[in-house]
Amino acid sequence: MSVPALAALRQELARQGLDGFIVPRADEHLGEYVPAAAERLTWLTGFTGSAGLAAVLADTAAVFTDGRYVLQLAEQTDPKRWQQLHVTEEPPPAWLAQHAPNDGRIGYDPLLISEEGLARYTDAGLKMVAVERNPIDAVWTDRPAPPSAPAEPHPLAYSGRTSEDKRADVAKVLREAKQDAAVLTDPASIAWLLNIRGGDVPFTPFALGFALVHADAATDLFIDPGKLPAETRAWLGNAVSVAGRDALAPALAKLAGKTVRVDASGSPVWFAQQLLKAGAVVAPASDPCLLPKACKNTTEQQGAREAHLRDAAAVCRFLHWLAVAAPAGQETEISAAEALLGFRRQVDGFRGESFPAISGAGEHGAIIHYRVTEESNRPIKPNEVYLIDSGAQYPDGTTDITRTVWTGPGQPPDEVRERVTRVMQGHIAIATAVFPKGVGGAHLDAFARRALWQMGLDYDHGTGHGVGSYLSVHEGPVSISRLARPVAIDAGMILSNEPGYYLPDHYGIRLENLLLVQAADLANARKPFLCFETLTLAPFDRRLLQPALMTRAEREWLDAYHARVLRTVGPELGGAERDWLSAACAPFG
Amino acid sequence: MSVPALAALRQELARQGLDGFIVPRADEHLGEYVPAAAERLTWLTGFTGSAGLAAVLADTAAVFTDGRYVLQLAEQTDPKRWQQLHVTEEPPPAWLAQHAPNDGRIGYDPLLISEEGLARYTDAGLKMVAVERNPIDAVWTDRPAPPSAPAEPHPLAYSGRTSEDKRADVAKVLREAKQDAAVLTDPASIAWLLNIRGGDVPFTPFALGFALVHADAATDLFIDPGKLPAETRAWLGNAVSVAGRDALAPALAKLAGKTVRVDASGSPVWFAQQLLKAGAVVAPASDPCLLPKACKNTTEQQGAREAHLRDAAAVCRFLHWLAVAAPAGQETEISAAEALLGFRRQVDGFRGESFPAISGAGEHGAIIHYRVTEESNRPIKPNEVYLIDSGAQYPDGTTDITRTVWTGPGQPPDEVRERVTRVMQGHIAIATAVFPKGVGGAHLDAFARRALWQMGLDYDHGTGHGVGSYLSVHEGPVSISRLARPVAIDAGMILSNEPGYYLPDHYGIRLENLLLVQAADLANARKPFLCFETLTLAPFDRRLLQPALMTRAEREWLDAYHARVLRTVGPELGGAERDWLSAACAPFG
Repeated sequence: MSVPALAALRQELARQGLDGFIVPRADEHLGEYVPAAAERLTWLTGFTGSAGLAAVLADTAAVFTDGRYVLQLAEQTDPKRWQQLHVTEEPPPAWLAQHAPNDGRIGYDPLLISEEGLARYTDAGLKMVAVERNPIDAVWTDRPAPPSAPAEPHPLAYSGRTSEDKRADVAKVLREAKQDAAVLTDPASIAWLLNIRGGDVPFTPFALGFALVHADAATDLFIDPGKLPAETRAWLGNAVSVAGRDALAPALAKLAGKTVRVDASGSPVWFAQQLLKAGAVVAPASDPCLLPKACKNTTEQQGAREAHLRDAAAVCRFLHWLAVAAPAGQETEISAAEALLGFRRQVDGFRGESFPAISGAGEHGAIIHYRVTEESNRPIKPNEVYLIDSGAQYPDGTTDITRTVWTGPGQPPDEVRERVTRVMQGHIAIATAVFPKGVGGAHLDAFARRALWQMGLDYDHGTGHGVGSYLSVHEGPVSISRLARPVAIDAGMILSNEPGYYLPDHYGIRLENLLLVQAADLANARKPFLCFETLTLAPFDRRLLQPALMTRAEREWLDAYHARVLRTVGPELGGAERDWLSAACAPFG
Repeated sequence: MSVPALAALRQELARQGLDGFIVPRADEHLGEYVPAAAERLTWLTGFTGSAGLAAVLADTAAVFTDGRYVLQLAEQTDPKRWQQLHVTEEPPPAWLAQHAPNDGRIGYDPLLISEEGLARYTDAGLKMVAVERNPIDAVWTDRPAPPSAPAEPHPLAYSGRTSEDKRADVAKVLREAKQDAAVLTDPASIAWLLNIRGGDVPFTPFALGFALVHADAATDLFIDPGKLPAETRAWLGNAVSVAGRDALAPALAKLAGKTVRVDASGSPVWFAQQLLKAGAVVAPASDPCLLPKACKNTTEQQGAREAHLRDAAAVCRFLHWLAVAAPAGQETEISAAEALLGFRRQVDGFRGESFPAISGAGEHGAIIHYRVTEESNRPIKPNEVYLIDSGAQYPDGTTDITRTVWTGPGQPPDEVRERVTRVMQGHIAIATAVFPKGVGGAHLDAFARRALWQMGLDYDHGTGHGVGSYLSVHEGPVSISRLARPVAIDAGMILSNEPGYYLPDHYGIRLENLLLVQAADLANARKPFLCFETLTLAPFDRRLLQPALMTRAEREWLDAYHARVLRTVGPELGGAERDWLSAACAPFG
């Protein structure tokens, strides 16, 4: 497939007068999951990883990805046609600057790259040319149709606030910033603002589309009208105009003389370009829905609690199933993930997974973004470490949980127990943290690592990410990470707490719960303080812990957490499962 | 004095065709301590605080300072002539934008403000005009002469590296960055680079001057030649040219066509302006001496240990003296600070204080930057909290220590003990931290606050600052603070560890030691890790601690620290002092 694809693309580039072209793995929303119609990188190169970019010149071409996908890139692409490169070791702008002809015209699709992303190419001295029509689309004859899943109302019982209310708030933000309108390109922002959900991409229940919010709260939604059943159209109300994707460019052109807010890092650069061409003033600022969406209201908070409780029953059933099955060694990474999915399918309101489960036994657990395939699948063996990171979508909330389990029947080595204990201490340090309002994720991250650092250990990922409310399991703008954006953590946010440790070729450890940020009620406080409420309810494998290494306060926290799990989840379970949970939640002696 | 001064300045402004003028509290090096000849703000307004700025217009004028000096500003300046304003509540650029005539020409002395500082005024839409000669200097008839303390060699026994060596390293950095030269405006950088020390300002032993380092390591020093005795001139060697301050502008003019590195935040904007006028290319980048100066070599590290040990003997003598004197209530904040200075004067190599001691009893301890005066001085009473923050300069090292003491003879209230214990826990959390190379001070700061935060308590200052080697007690570029610059902590840096707690109108707590960053030797580490060696040696007041609130590991750290203090400092002390130290360093039961 890739031979005619690359040749056809080069012909089209020549036709358009381009010396080169970049093909990011991206759709028009710059989202994490892209529909089949936007899988241009896969069509061109064969590579299916979730992060990558191809750069095509007349006589050479390269595909770039990160450390997660280096092996997959080598397997899926033809080395005769594609140089296979590591994106940070040889960044695409530098590669192009070296290989492109002097003053060569390098094409890019302005709908598939942000202003900040494009700047990396122009900063490298490249002459970047925005294409009118993506040259791949011109030659991709069997391109799938865009997705057309129906969008449905997200009722007040789950959203907690009317769309009218939310739009009034966003409009107020725009007026205060002296902006006439804001461009929304993130379908999650539109889903939140208009209280609708959809099914255009896997794992994240939104409908692909764009919107303009005006300073008077009127909102224009640009979406395939076929995705809006009459009930949903009625739900949107009269203050929301609806038009097809084709109406977007003319609508932007009408904003001449207006000041329009555009997110320079999150939105395709096409929007700023269109607005400037139309004579509008572009005000670069973050998506105005980001912060209010991140701070869940009390209805969403209560929904999250209930979704987590129902999800916990499935997770605990699975952990019981695994405790019974694993020592026999007859299950595999795939069969275990399917078993968990099977338990979740029985849960009220289950709408699907919130991301592809990571099911890694032994050495596979050490691959942080491992995704089991038929080829990589291996048995879960007795007496090894097994890691499973999974989550679900429910209309009242999104879940994400990682547990690390010893398969038994023997006892784990002391080294493994010591390291799991260090990760557990980091998890508890985050779960119990109290901090003043204004603190960001970069300031809390070290709490999760301190116990590991003392041993010269660490993990090469962030400690936590934001989570949506029946929306994306990876939601901005706040995270717990040294690289976190300087945005303050605030009440109502949901964040993951997932420190880990990975010994390459041996095993991986990750202990993840979701946290809800709450105001802390402290008698002495002279300013607002915040703390975390743990939402996730499932036991940590006590066989992997060394209580003697923990402080008394840490053991007390874990005992109290397990008592809470037993008290809340126990009544949802049957006989053998409940007996197992009782034992799993027993306090330390 | 201020009446004729302001009137004379306004006449001079009219003569120079200016509608206004800004007078920052600054000298040409933008340093912390300024010589009398640069105290233009005091001459003009009467205000003597260490941070402030005056803005003068034809018919109105204002002085701005921060929260530390609001009361002092009101006492020292005439409200009929000066609006007295808080610098963050009403920033000078906003005030000028509101009060200056439209298109008014606002003068500034380009030697007294950085490029970043100036940008705040131009960003506010003000028409800022660089003056050729500071209009205050034109009318300040009794202006003191510039300081002329002799500069002396800083021998290899203290500096550990030849200037030749250091200049070769800096030159290599310039060549790698494709820069032809660097402007040095920080006298501390020059002192480090050329291995000289001076006495032009109080507390920091450097000689005021400027330098140009070229990419071939040749260095031009611009300094009053009268400050260089023959011995120092010989010590500098032939690769260092020396010329007076007047030769600086012509030397910059000769850099036409060259790329010259200038620190946009730390250097006066005058340098970039002169270079641009001369046709040079200005490369904005940090002072190339900052990082190598911050990372002390092994000689400097050993010097710091020895200086701290000698300083500790004086501090312990003082603490003994205080333990005897305080319960009687006959001493004052001033007499105590003088007693400590008296003990330090007996120490080998004592060259002076490293900053004005903060000696605060009771409610004065809650004023973070309290500086006792004859007016504010008060007795140190029995049964209260007393805080003393002080430091010294020795040729082998700079010290900075804060202790918080209960004056006795009674017992402190439980609330005070609990809060001191929380501060102590934060201090220990920093002292015992282990962390990978690459971590910055913003990531460690929360360790120091965690125990306070859990109670809803906090302190409104950073946790630690860099400290020089017989140089400035406040040294960049690294600090431990949420607002720390994103510079990684590295081996050889000296940082303070000074969490605190302040109950306004009652008492202040601060527990400060200096730390030396060391490579951590950890068996499991797959990357470089760092840890801290505590340099400061003096007991913490155990009467103010509640050991039951501390973890076993925390108690063990404190016991080990006290044992080390007794073992190392004890032999330096006489009978009664030594007996007192033994008791003060006794382990927890």
